[in-house]
Amino acid sequence: MSALKKICLIGSGNWGSAIAKIVGHNVTKFDYFDKTVKMYVYEEIVDGRKLTEIINTDHENVKYLPGHKLPETIVAVPDALETAKDADVIIFVVPHQFVERTCAPLKNKIKPSAIGLSLIKGFGEKSGGGLVLISDLISETLGIKVSALMGANLAHEVADEKFCETTIGTEDEESGKILKDLLDTPNFRVTVVRDRYTVEVCGALKNIVGCAAGFSDGLKLGDNSKAAVIRLGLKEMIRFVKTFYGDNFELSTFFESCGVADLITTCYGGRNRKISEAFVSSGKTIEELEKEMLNGQRLQGPQTAYEVLNLLEAKNVTDRFPLFYAVAMICKGVIPPSSLIDYLRNEPTD
Amino acid sequence: MSALKKICLIGSGNWGSAIAKIVGHNVTKFDYFDKTVKMYVYEEIVDGRKLTEIINTDHENVKYLPGHKLPETIVAVPDALETAKDADVIIFVVPHQFVERTCAPLKNKIKPSAIGLSLIKGFGEKSGGGLVLISDLISETLGIKVSALMGANLAHEVADEKFCETTIGTEDEESGKILKDLLDTPNFRVTVVRDRYTVEVCGALKNIVGCAAGFSDGLKLGDNSKAAVIRLGLKEMIRFVKTFYGDNFELSTFFESCGVADLITTCYGGRNRKISEAFVSSGKTIEELEKEMLNGQRLQGPQTAYEVLNLLEAKNVTDRFPLFYAVAMICKGVIPPSSLIDYLRNEPTD
Repeated sequence: MSALKKICLIGSGNWGSAIAKIVGHNVTKFDYFDKTVKMYVYEEIVDGRKLTEIINTDHENVKYLPGHKLPETIVAVPDALETAKDADVIIFVVPHQFVERTCAPLKNKIKPSAIGLSLIKGFGEKSGGGLVLISDLISETLGIKVSALMGANLAHEVADEKFCETTIGTEDEESGKILKDLLDTPNFRVTVVRDRYTVEVCGALKNIVGCAAGFSDGLKLGDNSKAAVIRLGLKEMIRFVKTFYGDNFELSTFFESCGVADLITTCYGGRNRKISEAFVSSGKTIEELEKEMLNGQRLQGPQTAYEVLNLLEAKNVTDRFPLFYAVAMICKGVIPPSSLIDYLRNEPTD
Repeated sequence: MSALKKICLIGSGNWGSAIAKIVGHNVTKFDYFDKTVKMYVYEEIVDGRKLTEIINTDHENVKYLPGHKLPETIVAVPDALETAKDADVIIFVVPHQFVERTCAPLKNKIKPSAIGLSLIKGFGEKSGGGLVLISDLISETLGIKVSALMGANLAHEVADEKFCETTIGTEDEESGKILKDLLDTPNFRVTVVRDRYTVEVCGALKNIVGCAAGFSDGLKLGDNSKAAVIRLGLKEMIRFVKTFYGDNFELSTFFESCGVADLITTCYGGRNRKISEAFVSSGKTIEELEKEMLNGQRLQGPQTAYEVLNLLEAKNVTDRFPLFYAVAMICKGVIPPSSLIDYLRNEPTD
């Protein structure tokens, strides 16, 4: 008989804790999972107590997901290596900018047979320039297979167990099966698709389109134009996958939750949309708005737009992505928001 | 030298008049169009004057598109046959319920070589049951080739010349070329695709999804669920085309303005969404809300849902369309709106 599969989570913010609720419950539904799920928690003191101690005693992440009980299967651990070293499945859900420093101590110290799942949105940067998918970055650092999960999944609504959907992209059928068992619930419906690239690229690029939608709102262009902005953004997302990952993708993946659903949510709710609208109506810079509205935290859409712009320029294909190009230039203050539509008129037809 | 192509419009409401602005201008841009565009106007008296006379003198449809000058190429004619009899291109833009009675007098009296374009949303009903596309209904009645135009095109925004996109579906390449010349402008960007079925089915089914989105809003299910509702609705639209029109369609057509863009606009703006939200929050029937909010006019989403339900039941495939089914049953008052999500949990995965 093979040993039970041990699951762990690297990360315990809002989204990580919402996912812990699901995973901590689902391990009890299948015989082949170990019933203890370690969760790496960056140690901090909350009201005079250690956060790990609060989670392990009160079963609540009072700092990042207050008001929700975590299953008792979830055990907070203040050390990433201690959390991951025996695990068969490692779920990565740290902020985008902490991926590399979180993975470094795990290198050569985890099970070589472990599989990973990245819930992290955005691109990483290649040493020497260019973009890298976060799942590839983790995979290359740790030498394990890594899948990606993306979808229209606002963390607090997932924690509230409101009905939603999500998409797992994985080339590895066995990973897909295990990860679906671990994450699927009647209110968090998992679809597994093969093209991980598409799933993950959607999760990064949607924020650029969210900025364009926000500019459209700020300019009061109306419903028809906003629909056109979102559609042309979606077309550029498809073209991006085709250009940089080749034709070996499924168009249907863009109809999954990671594609059109997450994009819609980003373009109607979401802070990229909101701050981009304020950018137009206030005349302030993105940096000023980040300070005022995000406590100085960086907004993901403009950052991704700058990274993508560098790539498009390096590959000499800016003409093929007028919306992405315009968003980067508008955020930098090089062109006015009102020129967005002029760029969209040059959208390629293929 | 071949004779100049004569263009006419059958219909002069809000949408017809907005399109007349474009067509009336575009005929002057190409040598091969006749510079007079007849527009059939149902005669009525406005402030003591005939509407046709007002349009032909003041170049404004003061009743249905006030505040917008029509090009002087547009000539209002109070008789449909007089309008269409010499035309080479006939654009149909009358309300859904008037199609048959408007076409009847044209039968065998128009040029057999004429081509048609339908801007009419919704299905027609086959004698003996079943649904028929409006473009097919016109085509069969008049014996001419008919294309369809659909997209995220609120009439007043098109009239205001705000940037938007639209889709023409036609099996006939020559029709596609002529219709694009006639309708494409820098602010009304036309894409021509081959699968007319898909284009037209999208224009009808989106209103059912708009009702589901409205229920979701009324139930305050949140952004994740609403995104899931819209996505599953889109999947059912695709499945509907596949089930009833076979595999000979392009998945990419759903990424055109007629597909995802028009659907988004319908699910965030639009009266089907609005009244369906009120249906949940007020507890009134659809009929009561139609009286109160639409002056007794019928709401298109519920009507289309009932027509589609009849078809699905006749073909024994209701299981494959749980969202469409639930919308019809909710509108009829057979099941409560709160059961929508239970139906969505049964969404087929293929």
